[in-house]
Amino acid sequence: MNRKMIAFFVGRVLRIEAALMILPTVVSLIYREEEWIMIAAAALISFGTGYLLSFRKPKNMSFYTREGIMAVALSWILMSVFGAIPLWHAVAHIGFTDALFETISGFTTTGASILTEVESLPKGLLFWRSFTHWVGGMGILVFVLALLPEAAGDSIYLMRAESPGPSVGKLVPKVKSTAKILYLIYIAITMMEIVVLMLTGMSLYEASVISFGSVGTGGFAIRNSGCMEYTALQQWVITFFMIACGANFNVYFLFVARKFRDAFRSEEVISYLSIYAIITALVAFNIRNTFTGVHDVIRHSMFNVASVMTTTGYATADFNTWPTFSKMLLLVAMFIGGCAGSTAGGVKVSRVIIGSKTIRKELQHFVHPRSVKILKFEGKPIEHAVLRGINVYFLTYIIIFAVSVILVALDEKDFTTTVTAVIATFNNIGPGLEMVGPTGNFSQFSIFSKYVLMFDMLAGRLELFPMLLLFMPMTWRRQR
Amino acid sequence: MNRKMIAFFVGRVLRIEAALMILPTVVSLIYREEEWIMIAAAALISFGTGYLLSFRKPKNMSFYTREGIMAVALSWILMSVFGAIPLWHAVAHIGFTDALFETISGFTTTGASILTEVESLPKGLLFWRSFTHWVGGMGILVFVLALLPEAAGDSIYLMRAESPGPSVGKLVPKVKSTAKILYLIYIAITMMEIVVLMLTGMSLYEASVISFGSVGTGGFAIRNSGCMEYTALQQWVITFFMIACGANFNVYFLFVARKFRDAFRSEEVISYLSIYAIITALVAFNIRNTFTGVHDVIRHSMFNVASVMTTTGYATADFNTWPTFSKMLLLVAMFIGGCAGSTAGGVKVSRVIIGSKTIRKELQHFVHPRSVKILKFEGKPIEHAVLRGINVYFLTYIIIFAVSVILVALDEKDFTTTVTAVIATFNNIGPGLEMVGPTGNFSQFSIFSKYVLMFDMLAGRLELFPMLLLFMPMTWRRQR
Repeated sequence: MNRKMIAFFVGRVLRIEAALMILPTVVSLIYREEEWIMIAAAALISFGTGYLLSFRKPKNMSFYTREGIMAVALSWILMSVFGAIPLWHAVAHIGFTDALFETISGFTTTGASILTEVESLPKGLLFWRSFTHWVGGMGILVFVLALLPEAAGDSIYLMRAESPGPSVGKLVPKVKSTAKILYLIYIAITMMEIVVLMLTGMSLYEASVISFGSVGTGGFAIRNSGCMEYTALQQWVITFFMIACGANFNVYFLFVARKFRDAFRSEEVISYLSIYAIITALVAFNIRNTFTGVHDVIRHSMFNVASVMTTTGYATADFNTWPTFSKMLLLVAMFIGGCAGSTAGGVKVSRVIIGSKTIRKELQHFVHPRSVKILKFEGKPIEHAVLRGINVYFLTYIIIFAVSVILVALDEKDFTTTVTAVIATFNNIGPGLEMVGPTGNFSQFSIFSKYVLMFDMLAGRLELFPMLLLFMPMTWRRQR
Repeated sequence: MNRKMIAFFVGRVLRIEAALMILPTVVSLIYREEEWIMIAAAALISFGTGYLLSFRKPKNMSFYTREGIMAVALSWILMSVFGAIPLWHAVAHIGFTDALFETISGFTTTGASILTEVESLPKGLLFWRSFTHWVGGMGILVFVLALLPEAAGDSIYLMRAESPGPSVGKLVPKVKSTAKILYLIYIAITMMEIVVLMLTGMSLYEASVISFGSVGTGGFAIRNSGCMEYTALQQWVITFFMIACGANFNVYFLFVARKFRDAFRSEEVISYLSIYAIITALVAFNIRNTFTGVHDVIRHSMFNVASVMTTTGYATADFNTWPTFSKMLLLVAMFIGGCAGSTAGGVKVSRVIIGSKTIRKELQHFVHPRSVKILKFEGKPIEHAVLRGINVYFLTYIIIFAVSVILVALDEKDFTTTVTAVIATFNNIGPGLEMVGPTGNFSQFSIFSKYVLMFDMLAGRLELFPMLLLFMPMTWRRQR
């Protein structure tokens, strides 16, 4: 294993994180908050460590799957550790575990919070907290790729390890160009939401923070009530952008490239929108008596289904008090999640589609044992390796889920809280039900459970395997 | 599709069911209960229908996967319908849905009950109710195979469709001989338990009923308190036989064939016992303060973990009141279930083993992309078709589970009740948690939910695909 190359990469990531921390430092200074010094200090420490790690360019620049995966896993852990420093020092009565939990929750775009009260916190700090969503949404290593001129040709391994979904296609032949295009689209969408939210009367500050949360499908809010106090129009805007960012970004690339026909034919996005529409319709019908007036019913169901399905986690209503049928539908939407190649979590719509097709094929095989049918996705045959990867993904998903639930159950919370806390973190959503519902938070868990849930957030964001490999001895053994 | 052959098979099954009903009729007569006439009438109707269906031997006796699967699915549904007649007529205030639910729960060895009170019911009826566990445990079509001289050589399809587990091995070259040997072992174990229970002071009647429930891993009891009132010794005996019947019956065959070395090396049985031991130890430690005395703690944890892991469903304590950690462990044990080739439900230990090996292989592939490793199970390489089958099984399992939970949620029971009702029926266990816990029952669900749960019980018992294929139009289309 090329450890020097991994260190070099992690160092670069930390230097970029330091640069990204300048923005919240400025925000903090604008609002004349004394906490700016904490953020600036964290930036300096991050830069210093990053500088030491990536001081010397390694002679051997080659890296493969294993190096890519390790670079991703270590980068995410270290940038969370350094990112937690401002919160740790600036918020009263907060331990390092809680600060780390909040930061991992931010970078993984989970949005699960251990804070019981956010409105009194300094604005610069809340800005950084929400900015982590935005940074984590698209993935920071993609960012490194886009900026580093010296990244080798094998960098697709790196992108694969960090991108949500079963397989990463390159939009254009060069990985680096793909990364750049994705980031440009990402920035453009964010800008659009900020502008539109400001047109509805929001301040630049609040519009930015909410946009980071919805474009990154994160879910940290800066009001204790989440999104409940915003106007109906503002909620509709947020709904639109959440849905937009749960869709596969390749579609936006096709739009930019004026390939409209291909864009409108995306099997994954069509399925994603259909599943969203069906679940929303069922929930709306089910909660028709919970709110008064058709508009309210539609608004609340569209917002909250979009929020959980894109794994954002904002809420305009306490869906923990909704009927059981709606809660189950929301849970299923949480598991499905958004599209591959989006900023959303969950198992991804493409995996659900391919999984369903596999089942259909198996059933057909029973009826016509000699028939040979090739599975297709987005019009192309699915490679055997992708199919195998998806099957293994589901198996691994079940096992991590079961082990996490058992470990968190040691806290002796009720059944629903225990199960949905794992669902909400593992799928990078944020709120679950009962104690971790939209009006609850994660502060009451033990330190041990918090670390389990942190592992789940990272495992969910990085598509399971990087976090597992990190803890396996064989990964660290020297090459034979 | 050879419909005549399917009808012929279903007819044979119904005739055998009629023959099996003679036993409870005799029991009813011995206890001088007037309900004997109901059981006798059901036997007659079953025989008549069976006679009509299998009156003429079809000229074309060939059948393949599709015919085998349909014969299994239809047989199980029809034998449940006819088997429900005595209960329907003899119990006051019971609708046909409830009677059918109870009978399907019996044949599928689930043991979930809609009855709120059983002790006042006629003995002959309770005998039949528990006898369905015994009949369903090994599978009635295996029985047909064992008895029919004319069964064709392709009958392995039939056995595959009904036997629990990823792949059915033939113990001896001929399927029919395999079936006979399995039934002989099954009868021998049942006899043993009856005798041992009688030695502890149980009546022949009660010993038989409890043996049917534990050897078939069903779980219907004849006391309102389940197994709570039995002596410690009796509970230990039941624990032993539950564990024994959750193990792969191939091992007993190896014992009979004096291949002791092979028997003791069974990878599945060793894993099964290890998982059982680990979960029991954790539960025992967790409930150490729930009971007084080491013996009670060990007895209750060994009994109840064995009961849920073998998907029997007997209870010596209300585990719904146990700590959350223990409840989660019990739920995980429920999902794992027993061995393939046993009478137990769940996803089966062999699938869990092979699934885990697949994950390990995938992780190794990340570290050493060029390594080629062949997965082995029980010392033999796993065929590609078996691997694919297991992966599809897990996918299908997840989807049926999710859809069932959503449909049952329409009843607006609480979250835990809804989820565990599906877990308990789909894995053929019996009790879940909260309203369907060991002291609760399934009577409060709507008729619609009861049909969903009946589907789940049959789907769980028949390894998912037969029930799905039954409802797919393509199955019924004429061969191209």
